[in-house]
Amino acid sequence: MKHTSLGTLLCPVARSLDHVGEWWSILILRDALTGLTRFDEFQQSLGIATSTLSVRLNALVASGLLVKQQYCEKPPRDEYILTETGLDFEKVILAFTTWGNDHFAEEGHSTEIIDTQTQRPVRLGLVDLNTGEAITRERHTTAAGPAASERMRYRFDYAARRRADPDFALTFAMPPRPGD
Amino acid sequence: MKHTSLGTLLCPVARSLDHVGEWWSILILRDALTGLTRFDEFQQSLGIATSTLSVRLNALVASGLLVKQQYCEKPPRDEYILTETGLDFEKVILAFTTWGNDHFAEEGHSTEIIDTQTQRPVRLGLVDLNTGEAITRERHTTAAGPAASERMRYRFDYAARRRADPDFALTFAMPPRPGD
Repeated sequence: MKHTSLGTLLCPVARSLDHVGEWWSILILRDALTGLTRFDEFQQSLGIATSTLSVRLNALVASGLLVKQQYCEKPPRDEYILTETGLDFEKVILAFTTWGNDHFAEEGHSTEIIDTQTQRPVRLGLVDLNTGEAITRERHTTAAGPAASERMRYRFDYAARRRADPDFALTFAMPPRPGD
Repeated sequence: MKHTSLGTLLCPVARSLDHVGEWWSILILRDALTGLTRFDEFQQSLGIATSTLSVRLNALVASGLLVKQQYCEKPPRDEYILTETGLDFEKVILAFTTWGNDHFAEEGHSTEIIDTQTQRPVRLGLVDLNTGEAITRERHTTAAGPAASERMRYRFDYAARRRADPDFALTFAMPPRPGD
């Protein structure tokens, strides 16, 4: 895992992966979002080595996704509580849940997102809260934002020309790092 | 990366990570979703070793997210086209983009999701397409689905009791594998 090199990148996806790019982290967050908080609970749920869990939990604390909080003085015992940033990761978990259910659940859904008022499974959709419109590839695209580096602008510009003309064959030569 | 052990799990998040759990895969998909298709393009954009890119692209083909397609006969050159499953991964990328922008973009947004009709940045929201309601932690939850294993039911049941009573201190002892 090349944390150091990716950590310097500007792209918000790369940035995110710098914090949750090891899948144990994502599964720990999945469990924390269902309500688990204690070391033993994560350990039991995930069945991973104590040392690995320790490293991953500490990394999530360092990234500001979890905070450590003592729940027992004698013996001293900590639990791991989701921060606002950690709670907000739910959108990624729900997107993964839906994508996994839709494409890799041959034997049926083992997990569902449920509307607790109706007890019916949710059909997850992405919308633009500004317009209420569903997100589609026809209408929406990702583009360089105000803080984009020269490299990112180059990549978005190149990709737009590729989309407009599939035979577009200019050599793709990114400007030098740093920045992405 | 413990692919083999996670590959047997039922949880749709774990299943998803089995296919895209190495972050180079996620960054390749990010690039493919912007319109890149060729080995050299991914290589330039990501700046990764040729051998790593090769392994990751082949894994994405094996997982059914990309298909290989010859675009030049002499010399033989392939490109990598997103399948329906790969295209649908956009929801995960958009969730990552939004989460990264909201929490890890101190210097401003380097990437934005844009409504091409208004040229305004999208404010991404998750909704239940069945009801039109925004997804909230108050109203929505994840729960065991019809195909859940005994272990998954146990975990969801335990987590629900933990949420209902934070001091709930029954020993969490998952039933034995396989299945998760």
